[in-house]
Amino acid sequence: MLQISVVGAGSVVFTGRLIVDLCLTRSLSNSTVVLMDIDKKRLNMMYNLATKYAREMNTDLNIKKTMDREEALNGADFVIDTVKVGGYEPMEIERKIAESHGYYRGLGDRVSDYYGGIGAFHQLKFFLDLARDVEEVCPDAWLLQAANPVFEGSTLISRETKAKVIGVCHGHFSYTDIVKTLTLKQEDVKVLIAGFNHNIWLLNFLHNGKNAYPILDQWIEKKAEKYWKSDEYLNSPPWAAEQFSPAAVDMYRMYSLFPIGDTVRSASPWWYHTDLMTKQRWYGPTGGFDSEIGWSIYLNSLKEMLEQMLVWSNDPAVALTKEYPPTFSGEQHIPLIDAIVNDKEVQLQLNVPNKGAISGIPDDVVVEVPTVIGTTRGGRKTVTAMHVGQLPKRLMLHVLMPRMLRMEQILQAFLEGDRKSLLLMIAEDHRTRSFEDAKMLLEEQLGQSWNSEATKHYK
Amino acid sequence: MLQISVVGAGSVVFTGRLIVDLCLTRSLSNSTVVLMDIDKKRLNMMYNLATKYAREMNTDLNIKKTMDREEALNGADFVIDTVKVGGYEPMEIERKIAESHGYYRGLGDRVSDYYGGIGAFHQLKFFLDLARDVEEVCPDAWLLQAANPVFEGSTLISRETKAKVIGVCHGHFSYTDIVKTLTLKQEDVKVLIAGFNHNIWLLNFLHNGKNAYPILDQWIEKKAEKYWKSDEYLNSPPWAAEQFSPAAVDMYRMYSLFPIGDTVRSASPWWYHTDLMTKQRWYGPTGGFDSEIGWSIYLNSLKEMLEQMLVWSNDPAVALTKEYPPTFSGEQHIPLIDAIVNDKEVQLQLNVPNKGAISGIPDDVVVEVPTVIGTTRGGRKTVTAMHVGQLPKRLMLHVLMPRMLRMEQILQAFLEGDRKSLLLMIAEDHRTRSFEDAKMLLEEQLGQSWNSEATKHYK
Repeated sequence: MLQISVVGAGSVVFTGRLIVDLCLTRSLSNSTVVLMDIDKKRLNMMYNLATKYAREMNTDLNIKKTMDREEALNGADFVIDTVKVGGYEPMEIERKIAESHGYYRGLGDRVSDYYGGIGAFHQLKFFLDLARDVEEVCPDAWLLQAANPVFEGSTLISRETKAKVIGVCHGHFSYTDIVKTLTLKQEDVKVLIAGFNHNIWLLNFLHNGKNAYPILDQWIEKKAEKYWKSDEYLNSPPWAAEQFSPAAVDMYRMYSLFPIGDTVRSASPWWYHTDLMTKQRWYGPTGGFDSEIGWSIYLNSLKEMLEQMLVWSNDPAVALTKEYPPTFSGEQHIPLIDAIVNDKEVQLQLNVPNKGAISGIPDDVVVEVPTVIGTTRGGRKTVTAMHVGQLPKRLMLHVLMPRMLRMEQILQAFLEGDRKSLLLMIAEDHRTRSFEDAKMLLEEQLGQSWNSEATKHYK
Repeated sequence: MLQISVVGAGSVVFTGRLIVDLCLTRSLSNSTVVLMDIDKKRLNMMYNLATKYAREMNTDLNIKKTMDREEALNGADFVIDTVKVGGYEPMEIERKIAESHGYYRGLGDRVSDYYGGIGAFHQLKFFLDLARDVEEVCPDAWLLQAANPVFEGSTLISRETKAKVIGVCHGHFSYTDIVKTLTLKQEDVKVLIAGFNHNIWLLNFLHNGKNAYPILDQWIEKKAEKYWKSDEYLNSPPWAAEQFSPAAVDMYRMYSLFPIGDTVRSASPWWYHTDLMTKQRWYGPTGGFDSEIGWSIYLNSLKEMLEQMLVWSNDPAVALTKEYPPTFSGEQHIPLIDAIVNDKEVQLQLNVPNKGAISGIPDDVVVEVPTVIGTTRGGRKTVTAMHVGQLPKRLMLHVLMPRMLRMEQILQAFLEGDRKSLLLMIAEDHRTRSFEDAKMLLEEQLGQSWNSEATKHYK
């Protein structure tokens, strides 16, 4: 019997999507799902909602819950990691400390790259602990790495452990916003998107087999300005506005491929992010996902969702499938599991070691590219990056390679417990005015109470 | 008969050293030396001095001169490139333009990396033209790349042409200053120095076979402060003061290997270079080789040397060997030629494609490492990087890899004629305050009259 274990199942948005997708995937309907979290209240809530949803959907899913990690991993065929250690509060404290030193919106790279506090310490430590437990308790399980930073995390785990890790993100689906905005039919479009997680680029864009970049170019030339004045754009939530923001178009002009999803924010240059007004110019009225406005909207939406879920979970009368209709979420975890378990041929956009897929990137760096799920002669399942080849050189040298270097710096600092390396990262931040400032800022960050373990770790 | 052709023979310092070394190397004494320059006055002066010196030294050297490059290359076994296109004046204009935009001491990386103006255009263009002529006129000749930037230049030529290029620099000899300052005997010391040109590090430091870093550490702890107050340090010319400056010691502490030669300036972080006072704190009273004081001292010394040489060349009565005594200069060109021609076993510090010498650096990037001169079975001469292995990771990720990335950016911009790439380099300069400023600065630089060819090249 197939067992899927979700570590960090208290995640407000994610677990719900997972359960819905699983209920809709009849070929996985008699799986066991083990929900694990260290937050008892959230875990119980999720467990109640999940079991009720599965019942309403008439599936044979066997849903369990536990607060014990070993119990969760025991017997798992798939482990999904969606943990955000410590939640968002300690990161907000770090942000405030950095802002008091003149770093608008804090250190690190615009939300996505920097989950887990200074040097991504808390997340990386958790990832490695979990992966080592997987090695020991369920060595044949696939570890689906959904927690951020996916780039650092998947690379770290794949290098340091034998766990069969795959990084999974939904960000690339934003390309469908482009398809919609250009009023093309989704079924006529084929894309090839490649890069690193949160740093992916539209390499091929085909409409009925023909290059569709000219359609995009024409839209930009003739319709973009009008679109940026439309209610549709001006009233979009921050994460939705980014895909066709002035930032995306400017990045396309500068790097010659269109940026997809979080890339528009995460891989954008420093000069889009100097203050709120500048961010608003590039990302619309909210200033994008990571501005003080955009990020508050996000945190509030999480809070409201949580409250809603608590109400639902305490109200036996509510019809969950009515409130949260059963349609596929677009997350790739369940399709990936289905493909591996049931030998289905699907193309997914996953994060796996490069092994020559993108030219010029070392084999052991995890890239986000279309992947093929296959089977070796011996019956072993493989998840392999499709060959992508060259990306435009300017993009490689000014965006992807610097991002890769930053990943390597973060991992080196973490693996060697190297405080000097953390300091050098801060010192090289474009906003740093002196080495002494950088030192003071680092010490203040490490002095925050949740960082006591990091303080010991980085010597 | 062996022919050595010197392109850019008007070089004040360099050609003299070459002739002296050649006169002292009896195994090369019946060579032909072809001096080539487009500056007739300088060429004649150098020719007169060289022939007179060779006569005084009683050698059989056959010295010729020409202003025609093809004539110089014709029949050459070795071509030495020491050309600085346009001299220093146009670079000083570029520096002034940059300073008017708030970039103290101009754009680029502290003299060494940036020879040849914006994007190193003039030098790279010349290097490639020359190497292509070598391919055609004297395809079996070795091309000794002495002109800066050696790192970019040697990598470019080795990738783009079939010319047998070797980058040659003298910077690593500064390690002997360390030996002297520590009052060790040179013959008891062995070193392994590795990195990129102007970015080299003391990987092994042995005294009578034992690790000598503790001797260095003790000197730093007990004697450095006193040394920095001594007349010896305070009165050193800028290039001599750098090797044991506070900058070198601080870099050693930060990156865990001692920096050698130009590295102390070229590979140092931005915060040593914010203004003259800061530079003086790190590099002594002159502020180092590239400060307004240090650079003036250098330019003046060149001027005085030139005047002196003109006087000598016009005075038949002067005994050149008395004024300029015949001792080996320490330059490696002649020892290298001697080793190749006469099958001598010497270890030289040269710039050749990595091919696995330093771990983690692509094969086709030129590194500066100890090299072995060998012969294949077929009798072909080889110059091969010795295996170096791992460098400390923090050093790799915070110094060498960023420098490599900058080299790749410069070469990509040059090879693709990519103005956006030049712009992105300026935009990422730590001092750039806005993207618009960067744009204006680039356009103003390209607008300088000597850049008219660059303006056409970078589209």
